[in-house]
Amino acid sequence: MSNPEFQFAHRFDGISGSAIREIFKVIAQPGMISFAGGNPAPEALPEDVVSEIAVDVLAKNGKAILQYGATEGYPSFVESLAGYVREQLKCDIPAVLPVTGSTQAMDLLCKALIDPGDVILVENPSFLGNMQCMKLYQAELVPVESDGQGMVMEDLEEKIRRYHPKLLYTIPTFQNPSGKTLPADRRQKVAELAGKYRMVVAEDDPYRDLRYEGTPLPSIKSFDRDGYVMFLGSFSKIISPGLRVGFIAGEPDIIRKCTVGKQSTDVHTSNLNQAIVDQFIRRNLLPDHIRRICADYGKKMKFMLAKLAEFPEGVRYTKPEGGLFIWGELPEQMNAKELLADAIEKKVAFVPGTHFCVGGGHENTFRLNFSNSSMEQIETGMNVLNALIREKM
Amino acid sequence: MSNPEFQFAHRFDGISGSAIREIFKVIAQPGMISFAGGNPAPEALPEDVVSEIAVDVLAKNGKAILQYGATEGYPSFVESLAGYVREQLKCDIPAVLPVTGSTQAMDLLCKALIDPGDVILVENPSFLGNMQCMKLYQAELVPVESDGQGMVMEDLEEKIRRYHPKLLYTIPTFQNPSGKTLPADRRQKVAELAGKYRMVVAEDDPYRDLRYEGTPLPSIKSFDRDGYVMFLGSFSKIISPGLRVGFIAGEPDIIRKCTVGKQSTDVHTSNLNQAIVDQFIRRNLLPDHIRRICADYGKKMKFMLAKLAEFPEGVRYTKPEGGLFIWGELPEQMNAKELLADAIEKKVAFVPGTHFCVGGGHENTFRLNFSNSSMEQIETGMNVLNALIREKM
Repeated sequence: MSNPEFQFAHRFDGISGSAIREIFKVIAQPGMISFAGGNPAPEALPEDVVSEIAVDVLAKNGKAILQYGATEGYPSFVESLAGYVREQLKCDIPAVLPVTGSTQAMDLLCKALIDPGDVILVENPSFLGNMQCMKLYQAELVPVESDGQGMVMEDLEEKIRRYHPKLLYTIPTFQNPSGKTLPADRRQKVAELAGKYRMVVAEDDPYRDLRYEGTPLPSIKSFDRDGYVMFLGSFSKIISPGLRVGFIAGEPDIIRKCTVGKQSTDVHTSNLNQAIVDQFIRRNLLPDHIRRICADYGKKMKFMLAKLAEFPEGVRYTKPEGGLFIWGELPEQMNAKELLADAIEKKVAFVPGTHFCVGGGHENTFRLNFSNSSMEQIETGMNVLNALIREKM
Repeated sequence: MSNPEFQFAHRFDGISGSAIREIFKVIAQPGMISFAGGNPAPEALPEDVVSEIAVDVLAKNGKAILQYGATEGYPSFVESLAGYVREQLKCDIPAVLPVTGSTQAMDLLCKALIDPGDVILVENPSFLGNMQCMKLYQAELVPVESDGQGMVMEDLEEKIRRYHPKLLYTIPTFQNPSGKTLPADRRQKVAELAGKYRMVVAEDDPYRDLRYEGTPLPSIKSFDRDGYVMFLGSFSKIISPGLRVGFIAGEPDIIRKCTVGKQSTDVHTSNLNQAIVDQFIRRNLLPDHIRRICADYGKKMKFMLAKLAEFPEGVRYTKPEGGLFIWGELPEQMNAKELLADAIEKKVAFVPGTHFCVGGGHENTFRLNFSNSSMEQIETGMNVLNALIREKM
């Protein structure tokens, strides 16, 4: 066989998709303490309930579940989901579309809205997976400045005026990777700016329910008077990421375009998976389950923050009230990639922050996840990082 | 609330995604005899086995199944799938990627290869869903001429020379919608032309196992010496479409681009669904299950063909040896959309062939599905169509 040569589409120019993947291959090594992923704790995954529900829904509605379904979603789930979203967001939601994980919501939203060269405003740092999605639609990513509470509204409005963005992508609650939460007054302002400048907002809010202290905030969507805010939701952090069930909610015109895009993307999200999440909602299993997860994650977060307080002066970090991540900054002259290389030798992993930053840079930053480690692993792993940083000071 | 106005991406220019959807809304009416879809028979859907397997895999490996998985696939399934594909195709397959239904294989292949304006060669008529996918990637679709046995090789080579296509999309076995099967010598020729002109072939073969008579043919992939043929497979027709599990197999370079594309499309295909199909392969459940399906579908196909033989002279139709579809042609002056309108009044539905044709036309053609109707429904429905056509003669 000769060696075939392929001419790939230009959307892949400059896309490697590999920096973080290499890290994840390394951390798959046995014995590694990993603060690198964003995975739920194994204890948080309800395999017994899922099993019982699968048997139940297949017995009651197996023929429909195994048959082709509508792109618009499994009817029972579309109904329960609409009620769930309205109750969660406490506002009118004209349309919902179940999708194959909220990652697909972003893919479909870009498919619906983004031509090559269109500008998308993003927080900086932001979620790597969805930034790769935007880049594959050949969008130009323009970062909005942040302070300790997230996006700065003056800079947001200036960037809107200057770049005429099609879309603002934001994770307002316990942001990935920074752990920051946008305050209510800024949420309201984002919704107003969206209407004023006719810019669609993708409000990606997968960590919303993972609050361990403080008071829940209204969604950006709940302030939306003009219909420009699309809400992206996920059951990955509160039931299971392996099931790949999320949703997009908002204006019917956009939902319709996403639906047409989804027809030729995967036809519909697996009926079985939709039926399983449907039962979690209908049986009202989520509140107790989320309470249990939050008790565990909150304990871990506080412990990791306490361990960070032992780090040498000059190491700064965010103090989230929930979510899965803490964002740190080493002293300016230190390099988080070099720290990672040393840490991996000692079987501890995290993600250098530069990977989350538009255009790179910020080489002294890092992201820590606490949900997927035990208290013992947090103790050991944080001691290793503390010692390594002290060596470098 | 004001009425928001959205500026959608140009890829949606001219995409309605609605012609066939309107038909499907109508046929959802109770009492309708539908020859319109491509659905498996309810009896062919193994909900008891799926239920038993779901319990088993969740008990044995529930934590991994409900956790994030690798984009490359659920490890046990990647292994069994690779063996399955090699055995099916009887040739070396360097790489496989599980996807969320084979529709996603087409989406990822277009994502990997197609820039706006690139030419894709297609059979005419061809599968509507994947043609919509290609159009959303702003490809130019150029039809290849067919005779009774599928694509004509002289025209294929001429179109390749003239249009320098990036991709040829073909369903070689029991084609949707025509029911035609490409003979072995042409399959070999397709593989040779692909290598000669460095054109990727998407060999979409979901009906391969649904053969009710005649001898199985080697895949185009099995003749591929140059690595340009990508094989798209599906478990929708032989296990369940509702589970959304398919695969793409072929050159590692293309699989890798598809994998990077998939990272930001849905991260990975649901682990539970992959684990279920994995068990169908590992427990060797497919041969018996397929035998049972084929016995039923073969009987229905023969009966529908026998009913077509009763239609007035001037109605022509294909005589497939398998698959799900028969393609018909009314006398030139008759219009299949008008026939459909009359048939729906009498509670019988099918799809007018024009929807499957590049650039429309062929108003006198129609597609019939037999798998999802009972023998009684085929008897009644075909009698209705026969009578309506006779009225119009």
